[in-house]
Amino acid sequence: MTPKETGMIEDTTGPRLPKLRLYVADDLGGGAAVTLGRDQSHYLSNVMRATAGDRIALFNGRDGEWAGEITSLGKRAVELHVTDNLRPQADEPDLWLAFAPIKRGRIDFVAAKATELGVARLIPVMTARTQMTRVNTGRLRANAVEAAEQCERLTVPEVSEPASLAEILSDWPADRRLFVGDETGGGQPIAEAVGDIAAGANQPCGVLVGPEGGFATDELDALGKLAFVTKIGLGPRVMRADTAAIAALAVIQAIAGDWPISRDR
Amino acid sequence: MTPKETGMIEDTTGPRLPKLRLYVADDLGGGAAVTLGRDQSHYLSNVMRATAGDRIALFNGRDGEWAGEITSLGKRAVELHVTDNLRPQADEPDLWLAFAPIKRGRIDFVAAKATELGVARLIPVMTARTQMTRVNTGRLRANAVEAAEQCERLTVPEVSEPASLAEILSDWPADRRLFVGDETGGGQPIAEAVGDIAAGANQPCGVLVGPEGGFATDELDALGKLAFVTKIGLGPRVMRADTAAIAALAVIQAIAGDWPISRDR
Repeated sequence: MTPKETGMIEDTTGPRLPKLRLYVADDLGGGAAVTLGRDQSHYLSNVMRATAGDRIALFNGRDGEWAGEITSLGKRAVELHVTDNLRPQADEPDLWLAFAPIKRGRIDFVAAKATELGVARLIPVMTARTQMTRVNTGRLRANAVEAAEQCERLTVPEVSEPASLAEILSDWPADRRLFVGDETGGGQPIAEAVGDIAAGANQPCGVLVGPEGGFATDELDALGKLAFVTKIGLGPRVMRADTAAIAALAVIQAIAGDWPISRDR
Repeated sequence: MTPKETGMIEDTTGPRLPKLRLYVADDLGGGAAVTLGRDQSHYLSNVMRATAGDRIALFNGRDGEWAGEITSLGKRAVELHVTDNLRPQADEPDLWLAFAPIKRGRIDFVAAKATELGVARLIPVMTARTQMTRVNTGRLRANAVEAAEQCERLTVPEVSEPASLAEILSDWPADRRLFVGDETGGGQPIAEAVGDIAAGANQPCGVLVGPEGGFATDELDALGKLAFVTKIGLGPRVMRADTAAIAALAVIQAIAGDWPISRDR
């Protein structure tokens, strides 16, 4: 088993496979010892067939990214010795995504893609026409963790417990602009609406996308009365809810988020 | 069975469910007769439980959208009488997506989402690091048709047969700007690159996204030498190939495509 085959971090010559990175809860720093839980240990031992001495990357959302060398492998517990710092901690843009839960598969997809797109918080919102009555936030979080590991983020988005649209809006910070997908065609074109936020300024903002049936008329009316809300339009086609969420996040990141900052690799 | 339950086009009071629309090959015009094939007949009869007299929407990519009234239903053939024109034909933006095939599920997803995002042509491209050796273009096309029906497009994107990157580039029209996802971080930030195209001008352009392992170094070098190529960056995170394709298309449509034109409904 060579580093190239396992995707260990020494691999710099082969295809640009994502390096092996794990999100852990432990504090990270030079000399620290980390013991992985059962799932991650199984993944390293049995799926990736790692061996003692292999180095992987570790992050916890607080201490930056560190190299960890495997000191012992067991089926239920893999132990690592934290060696050197690979990257200092950096925050993601302060961008939230509030979305009406949609069926399994599509909601997992939204959690993963939103994580790749740099969202800081995922908020399931129950609206009048939301068909789903339960949300498995544990599964959403697992999807977010996996995506964060793969996309080289240093944080994992926070996943909020589901709340009603009324609750979300009454708790919404007044200084956080909320771009609401208005599928009736009454919204401001997104590039124009987002253009009001200075590029790279990283101002707090959020996106709200309704369920497949759209927002109810009274919901859209109420949203329109809130000073922090800007209704946005995403063009002439009728998008599915998951497409709308991803498209809106991409446009915000490209125009007003951190995409003007290129990846230095 | 009420119109509301079947999503027939008379439904204007309930949730904004997608109206029932079918893509057909037949010519459409007032008084025309259309006989649906087996799959669509099964869908209408057995899945949607349509009845004679129900009206659905029909489009063929050439003649605009028409209402069709069901005149007879059989398990293998449903017949419709075309009544009135609902919308005149309109083209989608002249935007192509060339992408290295990725595994099933993710490639279906790209075909559907790109259709929702208004792509005119889908081009599977075999690159040095493409893992897939075969592409089921029939399945890609079926995904594009279904998405076109649901998103209220009047066209279905063309699905090209797979070709090598060299072939695609040698046939590429010189006046069609090609935005290439450069995962090494060397690309121009996408909003800046796309900003050179006038908003709403609908100039022919395309997006090229590589496989999960990225482009090979010599591929990126060769791309960089072509006058019609602009290498783009999609921010500091490492995106999966499907995310990168969707994100790039959304940003292009928002800034230089047809999103400034709101949906008039």
